[in-house]
Amino acid sequence: MRQRRRRSDGERSRAAILEEATRLATVEGIDGLSIGRLAAAVGMSKSGLFAHFGSKEELQLATVDAAIELFDRLVLQPAAGASGGVDRLHRLVAGYLHYLEVDTFPGGCFFASVLAETDMQPGPVRDRLVAFLGDWLRRLEAAIRDAQADGVLDAGEDPAQLTFEIEAALFLANAQHVVARTTEPIDRARAAIDRRLVAAGDIRTSRGEEAG
Amino acid sequence: MRQRRRRSDGERSRAAILEEATRLATVEGIDGLSIGRLAAAVGMSKSGLFAHFGSKEELQLATVDAAIELFDRLVLQPAAGASGGVDRLHRLVAGYLHYLEVDTFPGGCFFASVLAETDMQPGPVRDRLVAFLGDWLRRLEAAIRDAQADGVLDAGEDPAQLTFEIEAALFLANAQHVVARTTEPIDRARAAIDRRLVAAGDIRTSRGEEAG
Repeated sequence: MRQRRRRSDGERSRAAILEEATRLATVEGIDGLSIGRLAAAVGMSKSGLFAHFGSKEELQLATVDAAIELFDRLVLQPAAGASGGVDRLHRLVAGYLHYLEVDTFPGGCFFASVLAETDMQPGPVRDRLVAFLGDWLRRLEAAIRDAQADGVLDAGEDPAQLTFEIEAALFLANAQHVVARTTEPIDRARAAIDRRLVAAGDIRTSRGEEAG
Repeated sequence: MRQRRRRSDGERSRAAILEEATRLATVEGIDGLSIGRLAAAVGMSKSGLFAHFGSKEELQLATVDAAIELFDRLVLQPAAGASGGVDRLHRLVAGYLHYLEVDTFPGGCFFASVLAETDMQPGPVRDRLVAFLGDWLRRLEAAIRDAQADGVLDAGEDPAQLTFEIEAALFLANAQHVVARTTEPIDRARAAIDRRLVAAGDIRTSRGEEAG
């Protein structure tokens, strides 16, 4: 019982440290995320933090995993109950734009921020981010393929090309939102994607626009 | 005469140092661009480099200016002789994609790379990059407005929205090209922009596609 209590406290504190770490990584960079700097930020001793994470790289990988978990909860899970491909696509897009709009991280999308930093730094941190991004793009593309199979999006559309165009709008929305701190780029991304899906045959989006 | 020769050598060497600095900044980050690290990279003494740039910030700003000069020569100047708005727009887009395709900098677009790094670091380096990016977007938008005035693009298109959509494709092309090192994202961006301009009424692009 006592041991379980202690372990549970440790887990809570580990989660709190990693929450701070994900936020710091989007401001100072994940390379600036040393055990010493994070210890100062969360008000713990370096040796206390060292007990949680054995090395800077372990700390960085645990930070990426914590960001993935949060993204999963905020963006991916709400889309899981969708009624079909095009509904899942709309939920993924809306979930991502909401994740930007509420400033989940101070420096914008964790993955865009940290991959821009590490894209020229080979190693396990970059590898994990590249894998995550590949997984995200495959989810968008799978939703498009399902929507085509459902007959909701034109079968003639190249799913990879359409995925690129949707991701492009989301990616720029993040970058511009970080710099300008307005919702304008988020609204522009939404408009761009809605328009593109209407061009691809999504009548439901078009009806939504007329109603709105 | 002798003094002029000396000055000219100094200028040459300054240009060579800054060329190395722009490349390094897209790999190590502009924050990693200390006088010490750059001195090691170009094989000069720290005091020799200090004679060129009085401080780390002066060095960083001179590096941004050198990248702007190169971008001006590679992308902006070739578009200046365009015959109208839509021709200028096509030249700006083609110029930017070519600048990516030939790997002008090892870490992709200098401005995307360094702004992603500094977007949460207030100061003159970030300010200069934000101003440059604003100028780039205004150029795209001015070309679109001119094309509308020429009657080549639909007057009903919102120029700021169309600018966002074009920039989105360019921006993602850069990010994906840096990670994947293939030309696929560049080709996807070209296809996305051509398609979008045809939807906006650009008959010339459409004719070009049929001919190609």
